[in-house]
Amino acid sequence: MAKRKPKVMRPKALPPRGFRDYFGEDLRERAAMLDKITGVYHAYGFDPLETSAVETVEALGSHLPDVDRPNAGVFAWRDDDDSGIALRYDLTAPLARVYAQFRNDLPSPYRRYAVGPVWRNEKPGPGRFRQFYQCDADTVGSASMAADAEMCAMLADVLENVGIARGDYIVRVNNRKVLNGILAGLMVDNEKTRSLPREFAKALETKVSDWEFVDPEAVLRTIDKFDKVGAAGVLELLTTGRKDQSGAFIEGVGLSKKDASRVVRFMESKGRDNVETLANLRELLGGSDAELRESQGVWEVGLEGLRELEEIADLLAAQGYGADRIVIDPSVVRGLGYYTGPIYEAELTFEILDEKGRKRQFGSVAGGGRYDDLVKRFTSQAVPATGISIGVDRLRAALEAKGNAAATPNGPVIVTVMDRDRMADYQKMVAELRNAGIRAEVYLGNPKNFGNQLKYADARNAPVAVIEGGDEHANGVVQVKDLALGKALAANITTNEEWKSQPAQVEISRNDLVAEVRKMIDRAG
Amino acid sequence: MAKRKPKVMRPKALPPRGFRDYFGEDLRERAAMLDKITGVYHAYGFDPLETSAVETVEALGSHLPDVDRPNAGVFAWRDDDDSGIALRYDLTAPLARVYAQFRNDLPSPYRRYAVGPVWRNEKPGPGRFRQFYQCDADTVGSASMAADAEMCAMLADVLENVGIARGDYIVRVNNRKVLNGILAGLMVDNEKTRSLPREFAKALETKVSDWEFVDPEAVLRTIDKFDKVGAAGVLELLTTGRKDQSGAFIEGVGLSKKDASRVVRFMESKGRDNVETLANLRELLGGSDAELRESQGVWEVGLEGLRELEEIADLLAAQGYGADRIVIDPSVVRGLGYYTGPIYEAELTFEILDEKGRKRQFGSVAGGGRYDDLVKRFTSQAVPATGISIGVDRLRAALEAKGNAAATPNGPVIVTVMDRDRMADYQKMVAELRNAGIRAEVYLGNPKNFGNQLKYADARNAPVAVIEGGDEHANGVVQVKDLALGKALAANITTNEEWKSQPAQVEISRNDLVAEVRKMIDRAG
Repeated sequence: MAKRKPKVMRPKALPPRGFRDYFGEDLRERAAMLDKITGVYHAYGFDPLETSAVETVEALGSHLPDVDRPNAGVFAWRDDDDSGIALRYDLTAPLARVYAQFRNDLPSPYRRYAVGPVWRNEKPGPGRFRQFYQCDADTVGSASMAADAEMCAMLADVLENVGIARGDYIVRVNNRKVLNGILAGLMVDNEKTRSLPREFAKALETKVSDWEFVDPEAVLRTIDKFDKVGAAGVLELLTTGRKDQSGAFIEGVGLSKKDASRVVRFMESKGRDNVETLANLRELLGGSDAELRESQGVWEVGLEGLRELEEIADLLAAQGYGADRIVIDPSVVRGLGYYTGPIYEAELTFEILDEKGRKRQFGSVAGGGRYDDLVKRFTSQAVPATGISIGVDRLRAALEAKGNAAATPNGPVIVTVMDRDRMADYQKMVAELRNAGIRAEVYLGNPKNFGNQLKYADARNAPVAVIEGGDEHANGVVQVKDLALGKALAANITTNEEWKSQPAQVEISRNDLVAEVRKMIDRAG
Repeated sequence: MAKRKPKVMRPKALPPRGFRDYFGEDLRERAAMLDKITGVYHAYGFDPLETSAVETVEALGSHLPDVDRPNAGVFAWRDDDDSGIALRYDLTAPLARVYAQFRNDLPSPYRRYAVGPVWRNEKPGPGRFRQFYQCDADTVGSASMAADAEMCAMLADVLENVGIARGDYIVRVNNRKVLNGILAGLMVDNEKTRSLPREFAKALETKVSDWEFVDPEAVLRTIDKFDKVGAAGVLELLTTGRKDQSGAFIEGVGLSKKDASRVVRFMESKGRDNVETLANLRELLGGSDAELRESQGVWEVGLEGLRELEEIADLLAAQGYGADRIVIDPSVVRGLGYYTGPIYEAELTFEILDEKGRKRQFGSVAGGGRYDDLVKRFTSQAVPATGISIGVDRLRAALEAKGNAAATPNGPVIVTVMDRDRMADYQKMVAELRNAGIRAEVYLGNPKNFGNQLKYADARNAPVAVIEGGDEHANGVVQVKDLALGKALAANITTNEEWKSQPAQVEISRNDLVAEVRKMIDRAG
């Protein structure tokens, strides 16, 4: 056998699976977008909060709100003292902890915004990472529907402020309580549950998981498939079950046809405008007909939800937020299982091409709603709260798809090194440029191969390269090369003569360096 | 025994020990400071990079560079697939991983900056948290001393840009190789090591821990105590040992007196200017006297370090960075064990009062140096690199101590709620104010108690409160209350008559709302 060299074990130069890095302009554009978002939050009176990335397991609890990621867990481990600690999975659970901890010092109501990464321990997939950014705003301590209307208006303002044109987005509003009213109605229609005490309505409002008879989560999961299987499919799934495309049979929830169709009617009750939608909902809930309402066994919670939607609609209408921006839409399901009152979802309505080249709407980029129970875990006092969360990476992707991202190259001016011993001269040049507000750097690689320096300038997206050899130095001149123009010319010039006559590189007085470079950059911009 | 209620276990509303939260203006000021820092980095041609917070344990390795936190470990745990993952403990180790991973796509040299939290698993203490911010700039792939000089110049520019006046800071420069040269000299003087082959010098440069004879880490740890025990103390500790204040005996490193005093002379070799300092070092290293050098057995590495310091000094002098900003100082020890060439440290020289009311210099806020081995772990190719790291929280504290932090209150205008049914009117007012660029919000708590609304405005640091009751509404007027002026007056007014005549609250036409509020804010600012 031939001798083998002993194998040296080197670490792999990779992040853990499901994690990624962000570079350069991408990061700067994200930062600019976040500044615009938080600028709106701040103007609305919200204050920033940054909580620690690590929380105790007991403080976090497990309220993963994101129906998009139903299988996500938390990254948790044991601290030195054996207590459980974990990376936050959203920005809301830490807010609840902070509010409970500092409730005597914080203003009430407490409006806060937060930006930062959150972590989900889940199977990574294409475009699905285990660390991603959220950008939230929440109002804690206000039960007023004005707080919810404010969230919707702010969401619309945020989208326009980052560059989504009116007409290219819609904020849709629904209310968990209305669905609860519908569900309550069908409970009583169900033989099994006919004997339920009315007091149960209260529990239903806040603690759905105690409901033993029809699993409301099963209903929620089913209506969440509305987009995929349509009204007929949901009807099957809510009743006796349905064969899916692969031929597999999916068991039904077990509602009667009548009950199931009432749920589907709720989903489809969006009218031509808010007035019509609200009328449809009132009809479904028994309307003003007390007798009908009684016969359908509708509990007050549904009507309460309806009144809340009406109040939000009135407040928004008075502020001029019409149906082109914010609309009541009972088909919004996102987060229904998590929230306790109004819910909102922002969708981008313009079309993009998906990975298979098919047109589709861009879809949801933000959502939120009212959650009145989170702080209670800590203090035993219920604290009303409502908020929104923006999917930062998705909104970034949307802006790129729309071509709204800043396209101007922002590379530095590169001062090349012709004479290694005159590094101090070159550093003086970049200092002059920077003092004039122009981003600039000296080439710091091995200067021997000048071609490498120009390749580097190209890789940096540099607008201008500065060249000063010994002769130039002696004559008090420098060469400045307009790299953007050079690129444009290279695409069109074919003969040597043309190359020689091209004006992309000019000799100027050393004293005019800043002025000439600025001229070239302005020309490129 | 009396009956007890069953105890409900509630989670504690606290972060894990050693973690903290940041609020409001504090965060906004930190963000403004970071913008100023990264603005300088960017102008110097550095590109942003954001790596994931989580890395594989093998990629991180264990190169904790921070001599301030010698006992800090990493937060690590097992991923679902049983591989080890960990929170990053600095921004440099992830940079090494990224550079190794993307070396074919990144420009070379690669200048990058990074801002973000890092985590250290250590015992928390006062002012010592397990999550803190760093703000780094590094140049990877350049062996040129121009890259190091640039780091020093940039550090000085950064400090001035965030508001530290020239004269209130100093960037001190040293070189690990010069100390290596001194240590090499004393090796040969030691009987035990007289037979060491000259080839060992090479290993000494890069892999000090293989040195079996005198433990260089012990020498480094000892000279790090220079500030505490002085020259005489270090001399004792380097030789036979020393009794500390408690009477306990600390064993010595075992150097001869002659060797130890050469180390101390190195520490004290700072002259009146760089020229004198460099001459002192040359003398210590055997100067130009080849024979003396031979007799002292000085290896080339020391002179190489000296040449590097001279080159940095020349480059900085040519750019006008004098000894009032950047100075060569062989007593800088920070990170000597981690770095392989030049090291830098930025100190704030103004005095503050410590927790016991004693005057002391503020001290170090940033540091860095050249580390040529980090990428090699991944690729087996040595990649030269140099960088700086700014202690964000310490620099923030320094700016506060100097009173440079923005003092203008930035609370929102509060529109109070006199009539719960006219919420839409109040929301229109804040929308008008915001559209004019004025931060504003409606009070969203229970409006019954008007005193609570004014208390809230006070807690929010609001400059102005707006009041519109039914009468005002009917008359087309509103009350605007200058809260800043009100506070100032409250300190001086004693009689009811004076209160009535005070001009802090005025009735204005509803149409003049924006103009009048702006006037009041401008007056306060």
